[in-house]
Amino acid sequence: MNLRQTWETQLMSLCQGTRDYNPKQMAIREKVFNTIISCFKRHGAETIDTPVFELKETLTGKYGEDSKLIYDLKDQGGELLSLRYDLTVPFARYLAMNKITNIKRYHIAKVYRRDNPAMTRGRYREFYQCDFDIAGQYDPMIPDAECLKIVHEILSELDLGEFRIKVNDRRILDGMFAVCGVPADKFRTICSTVDKLDKMSWEDVKNEMVNEKGLSEEAADHIGEYVSLQGGMDLAERLLQDQKLSQSKEACAGLSDMKLLFSYLQIFQVTDKVVFDLSLARGLDYYTGIIYEAVLTQVGVVPAPVSTEAQNGAAEETVSVGSVAGGGRYDGLVGMFDPKSRKVPCVGVSIGIERVFSIMEQKASAEKVRTTEVQVMVASAQKNLLEERLKLTTELWNAGIKAEVMYKKNPKLLSQLQHCEDSGIPLVAILGEQELKDGVVKLRTVATREEV
Amino acid sequence: MNLRQTWETQLMSLCQGTRDYNPKQMAIREKVFNTIISCFKRHGAETIDTPVFELKETLTGKYGEDSKLIYDLKDQGGELLSLRYDLTVPFARYLAMNKITNIKRYHIAKVYRRDNPAMTRGRYREFYQCDFDIAGQYDPMIPDAECLKIVHEILSELDLGEFRIKVNDRRILDGMFAVCGVPADKFRTICSTVDKLDKMSWEDVKNEMVNEKGLSEEAADHIGEYVSLQGGMDLAERLLQDQKLSQSKEACAGLSDMKLLFSYLQIFQVTDKVVFDLSLARGLDYYTGIIYEAVLTQVGVVPAPVSTEAQNGAAEETVSVGSVAGGGRYDGLVGMFDPKSRKVPCVGVSIGIERVFSIMEQKASAEKVRTTEVQVMVASAQKNLLEERLKLTTELWNAGIKAEVMYKKNPKLLSQLQHCEDSGIPLVAILGEQELKDGVVKLRTVATREEV
Repeated sequence: MNLRQTWETQLMSLCQGTRDYNPKQMAIREKVFNTIISCFKRHGAETIDTPVFELKETLTGKYGEDSKLIYDLKDQGGELLSLRYDLTVPFARYLAMNKITNIKRYHIAKVYRRDNPAMTRGRYREFYQCDFDIAGQYDPMIPDAECLKIVHEILSELDLGEFRIKVNDRRILDGMFAVCGVPADKFRTICSTVDKLDKMSWEDVKNEMVNEKGLSEEAADHIGEYVSLQGGMDLAERLLQDQKLSQSKEACAGLSDMKLLFSYLQIFQVTDKVVFDLSLARGLDYYTGIIYEAVLTQVGVVPAPVSTEAQNGAAEETVSVGSVAGGGRYDGLVGMFDPKSRKVPCVGVSIGIERVFSIMEQKASAEKVRTTEVQVMVASAQKNLLEERLKLTTELWNAGIKAEVMYKKNPKLLSQLQHCEDSGIPLVAILGEQELKDGVVKLRTVATREEV
Repeated sequence: MNLRQTWETQLMSLCQGTRDYNPKQMAIREKVFNTIISCFKRHGAETIDTPVFELKETLTGKYGEDSKLIYDLKDQGGELLSLRYDLTVPFARYLAMNKITNIKRYHIAKVYRRDNPAMTRGRYREFYQCDFDIAGQYDPMIPDAECLKIVHEILSELDLGEFRIKVNDRRILDGMFAVCGVPADKFRTICSTVDKLDKMSWEDVKNEMVNEKGLSEEAADHIGEYVSLQGGMDLAERLLQDQKLSQSKEACAGLSDMKLLFSYLQIFQVTDKVVFDLSLARGLDYYTGIIYEAVLTQVGVVPAPVSTEAQNGAAEETVSVGSVAGGGRYDGLVGMFDPKSRKVPCVGVSIGIERVFSIMEQKASAEKVRTTEVQVMVASAQKNLLEERLKLTTELWNAGIKAEVMYKKNPKLLSQLQHCEDSGIPLVAILGEQELKDGVVKLRTVATREEV
């Protein structure tokens, strides 16, 4: 590649890990957003917005091992700033700053992560998050159950195929770590490793625990037994009787709440999709209670985000088809922003909207998607009727009708009709000398060529 | 302030020049967006989206003197990135990259400028832009006139009070600079100075031209005569006869097109608000033809963005009440991104949505604005009815009805009713033992206390 070519390529390129949305993609995006926002509104949520960048220290110490993925702005004099990494930390900062103790809000906006886009297919450095959170001191598990109800509603309405919602609780995980002999200061890092079970085999996960994180093989094997368990309310009941796990107060609290959660999920009619799964860990540091993640279970619907490590020798069945929603309870985060450490309990869910977009796009690739909503095209068969076309179009616009007219003095009728075909405009109003004299307009249905 | 206080303040603060939107502000924002998007859709526009950051070189050399206000990202390894400064340059890059030669699109998104927020009131470092552009080779002034029609429709529908749309043409300005004796290499910088006439007195503008930019006093005075002129199609006709100005081919081309523009504006029924104003310059480098700016003319509606220089000794009447829309033709920008310099003529308009928000907010400050759309609150007067409340709420949600329920086992009826009052929920469904036995629900209209 010579210098000129390099320059040309640069002139026209986007930065790595980002993308434009074309009109067709935007039409799909709008449809998806409308479905999701309708659901959030049905559940009584308000919405807020926060800036795309925050003070660097606002984001510091909130994301554990992922903090290295935060984008910083250049120091151009003034404050040190970072691009938001998610919508949850800005939400917590917002609550603390405005001393808000209860709110049910959704927030749909872009977040930024310096991930390696080549390594993890389908992941972008700029992507939408779509969050619903309930903040406030309430009776246990009621708002938590509503979050799961919302995931169930949205995934059903979007019609993405079969899905499953895995739930677990950080208190159960921590109790499990404790009884398995993990030192307390290693809970979070071991938790991060367990979180990789959806992308890596147990062998690889165990390997990381023992060889990288210095856990004893015995403790790792203990963990391995627990994280293979899946079930429903019955599993929670059984584990409450488990000789080892029941020694942990924390685990017992988590297991009792899990039972309560399932009782509300029954009332909400969503237990068909929810599984209590002890291998679910979630990477983020700030969760304190219930955690959940929804995955699509129809293999092949969407390319799985397989990392190169997972591809090397990992068993097929351990590869997750793709998480499309996740969340949990984080009762300590708001307090981190409050000078008096006043806590505001929160629970929320984030819809993995980018994954949803790509599935919808794949589905729509065969169909024709309209990218405008134009109802009428104002056309003419004869020359020198620009003024009349513009006049009629003005009347239509002023009456609130979506109308288009070609920006040419003398366009060909064929090219005007072709435009209607291309962009799916259903009606065309055809002007002619005779019609103008009679004070009428010919209206043609594009599909049938019927005229009135 | 002691160290601990500093730390506390930092914990809770936002970066300078940015702000959160609370639910009430978001409700207003949604209303404004809906009005604007409806108008764009009525005119047949599609929408696209581009990343919030672009390669640094994409933005380089597009914004003239304002380039210093571009936010750069920190070099964390990889490409050099900048936050978008407007939506026009990314649009041009998008067209070139995808070899699109005609499109009518709108784009609503946030842009970033390292402006001094303390000096210029009402200006933020992060703010929304709301752009409509028409790209393509068409007959002159038809798309240009449609842009002005759109501004007229939007400002009328938003009901912001009296407004005026100033129009001018870069070719008229350049022709004027030429006949006034401005050297060609100073056109753009003198143009930037003329652009300040809405914030500074003529005296200050002249001073900057002569003392800072090295223009002769004679040339400055010549310019001063022209830039005081305002009119309509008649002024364009008169200037075509102007002994000096008519010597410039460029000016004549601009003036002829101005006449043509006004003829289309008459058909579109918008000449009541449009003024041909020779003092309008617009700061950006990339305009090549028609330029325009809409200002609100009812003083006191909104705090004027008065810079400190302008306040010192500037005459009241020179202070603009506030630009709420602006745009123009930029036929060269797309070619800057194309390796073969293929031009795609473009014309567009940007709605000054942040200004619109603050006016709407001021208007709404007295009224009660609903921030949710909940139709029914499911309540109970007696204890131990949580399960029944949740069941009814589930039925409502499943039927697509916006419903809320309190996350308490035994909430007081009064606090449930109070929540309805506070958030404007019109109906409350009250459950009781007796009603459950009879298989009915009492439905109360909150405002009238009527029950059925």
